[in-house]
Amino acid sequence: MLTASQLLPLDAIDQLPFTPGEFDARLAACRRAMTERGLDYLVLSSPENIYYLSGFITKGYYVFQALVLTHTSDPILVVRRYEQANVERLSYYRNAAIWQDTDVPAEVLARALVDLGALGKTVGVDANSMFLTVNAYETLRAALPGTNFVNASTILERCRAIKSPQEIAYIRRAAETLSAGFKAAHEAARPGRTENDVAAAFHHAAISAGSEYMGSAPYIASGPRTALPHATWAGRCIEKGDLVIVEGSGNWKRYSAALMRTWCLGKPSDSVRRAADTSKAALAAAIAAMRPGVTSGEVDAACRGTVARAGLAHAFLNRTGYSVGVGICPGWGEGWVMDLKDGDPRVLHPGMVFHIVPVLFPEPNISVGFSATVLVTETGAEIVSDYSRELEC
Amino acid sequence: MLTASQLLPLDAIDQLPFTPGEFDARLAACRRAMTERGLDYLVLSSPENIYYLSGFITKGYYVFQALVLTHTSDPILVVRRYEQANVERLSYYRNAAIWQDTDVPAEVLARALVDLGALGKTVGVDANSMFLTVNAYETLRAALPGTNFVNASTILERCRAIKSPQEIAYIRRAAETLSAGFKAAHEAARPGRTENDVAAAFHHAAISAGSEYMGSAPYIASGPRTALPHATWAGRCIEKGDLVIVEGSGNWKRYSAALMRTWCLGKPSDSVRRAADTSKAALAAAIAAMRPGVTSGEVDAACRGTVARAGLAHAFLNRTGYSVGVGICPGWGEGWVMDLKDGDPRVLHPGMVFHIVPVLFPEPNISVGFSATVLVTETGAEIVSDYSRELEC
Repeated sequence: MLTASQLLPLDAIDQLPFTPGEFDARLAACRRAMTERGLDYLVLSSPENIYYLSGFITKGYYVFQALVLTHTSDPILVVRRYEQANVERLSYYRNAAIWQDTDVPAEVLARALVDLGALGKTVGVDANSMFLTVNAYETLRAALPGTNFVNASTILERCRAIKSPQEIAYIRRAAETLSAGFKAAHEAARPGRTENDVAAAFHHAAISAGSEYMGSAPYIASGPRTALPHATWAGRCIEKGDLVIVEGSGNWKRYSAALMRTWCLGKPSDSVRRAADTSKAALAAAIAAMRPGVTSGEVDAACRGTVARAGLAHAFLNRTGYSVGVGICPGWGEGWVMDLKDGDPRVLHPGMVFHIVPVLFPEPNISVGFSATVLVTETGAEIVSDYSRELEC
Repeated sequence: MLTASQLLPLDAIDQLPFTPGEFDARLAACRRAMTERGLDYLVLSSPENIYYLSGFITKGYYVFQALVLTHTSDPILVVRRYEQANVERLSYYRNAAIWQDTDVPAEVLARALVDLGALGKTVGVDANSMFLTVNAYETLRAALPGTNFVNASTILERCRAIKSPQEIAYIRRAAETLSAGFKAAHEAARPGRTENDVAAAFHHAAISAGSEYMGSAPYIASGPRTALPHATWAGRCIEKGDLVIVEGSGNWKRYSAALMRTWCLGKPSDSVRRAADTSKAALAAAIAAMRPGVTSGEVDAACRGTVARAGLAHAFLNRTGYSVGVGICPGWGEGWVMDLKDGDPRVLHPGMVFHIVPVLFPEPNISVGFSATVLVTETGAEIVSDYSRELEC
């Protein structure tokens, strides 16, 4: 394990987010997995996977981009002309195939693959990624007849699930910015103010404390709007006695930490009190169950069992938690990498990080939840993002 | 055209964003296009397309969701169990096929299609959308053997390109929130403060003025970081003499308006001055060229020609502009719907709205740009989002 002095400084700006040694190790791990699966080439499309392997990053990732891996030559980026300066200045690898706004980008990728000798070979693609459209994939297949394309998304998912010391340091730093956001949101959540006031305070404080752009906007709702899953602020005026629910993330070097809290602006009803106590107990039970060697399903069972024993099984609609790490919109989570759910046999390892979210919908117009971002350690689990769990405020 | 009194009130919260008449007309237009292309069914995947046709919206759109259209029955949503309350409370259509966190979502969609009689028929899919993964598409195809799948993304793209009076009202309201954000960002962009201070001020002011979550975080960079295309804030301390560039959006009912400004915190160099004057002149030339009947390529030529005549052709790397409308992450733009670029024969119509962005990179460490969101009217064009175009501050 690296010592603290070997980590990159946390105030590094626009420098490579990881050491050359860490990038080299990631590439080597990918190539080993490519060999195991018989892949000659690997084409990655998701901005998270591209950033993870190369450091290349742009907020303009809503257009086509790719990273092409071979067994021998340096990885090659395929990016829009407009982004070329980001390759030259932000990426560990500097080779790029460039597409113009008047090109069909997948054709530029196809030409790069042909130039690399991929015709007739086996090419892995990021088929689980949102960022390889069906249209682009079909363009690619048509341009490389006789080539064998296979889904290779899980190669990167496995690499990303276990965080390095540098990645964990970034998640801890993200959690600090998140705490500042929650403190400000908590203070703004008062009768007579609006959901927008809470959102404005959250953003101002988290960004002032260092957060980069968040992997997703926070979910903020009050009163009966708390019953809308994943609702964002919508101008509603907060009233005395309302519930206010906030779930948000902070971000550092594109790594996320996340947190959910619920505040009651008055005396909570018995139903709200019971849901809050149950959510906190389920969170504690999940964390107590987390350690190397247990399965995803076992953690889920600990959490879900606590909720069921409180008579609220009907109110717990979602999985217990999901992996967090590289967080680029549209979500701060990386549930695709790993999540914690009923019957899942996947095993926890040290260095995995999860957002545990036992949010409950006990009545038609109410949701209540308390969460934590939790690191799996060598011997158990450690809470990384926290804030007061008081319901009343 | 609707009169102002027929529009929905701008402070409506969690009500349907459009009248039943407008939703009905959109569905009818889709069905006509389906008939023209011989489609029996249409499966939409992008959250923008789903929202446009049904009003269904959730920030949890980072997982699988779909809207299935037939020629006869009401559209059917395919959503995660966790989102079911949003169907019941936010959507114009209430029929839904639900997937659990332990299901394969595309299999639930496939079963819904089979139940609707789609086996062996022709099914259009949103193949240009990021939100239909290759993996989901292949699952779908395997589950419906003998069924003819075709790319039908352009059906919705054409509908969405021309905005209704209600949509234009939302974009105008978004522009008001954006102006508040730019005023605050401008005041925060001072030597000794950081890029994060500018970002915090922008978010706080725009959200306080009513903005919902933005389709993308704003791009904010200072000094040499302005040379990084689509760069976001990264904690850099702003120095005397620096350039600060901000490009951001405001959002209302998921409709975006966008704007870019550049501020020089000292006396601008001749190169910066010339680039700023050229960007403003190119913006004006594009707007002057915009009216019903001209082509995308003609607007681009007016803009690009102005830049070329100033000797800065090498500094203009991107298309002249792109459509804005329903803005859901990862981008506030809808360049997939329509954009303004070299040689493009598509024709402008009244009700189209574009963000015109002649940003220039005149030197290796500098970018300078001024933009506007512009509505195509019956006779010409109207600027919807604006702010002082002063370079010096």
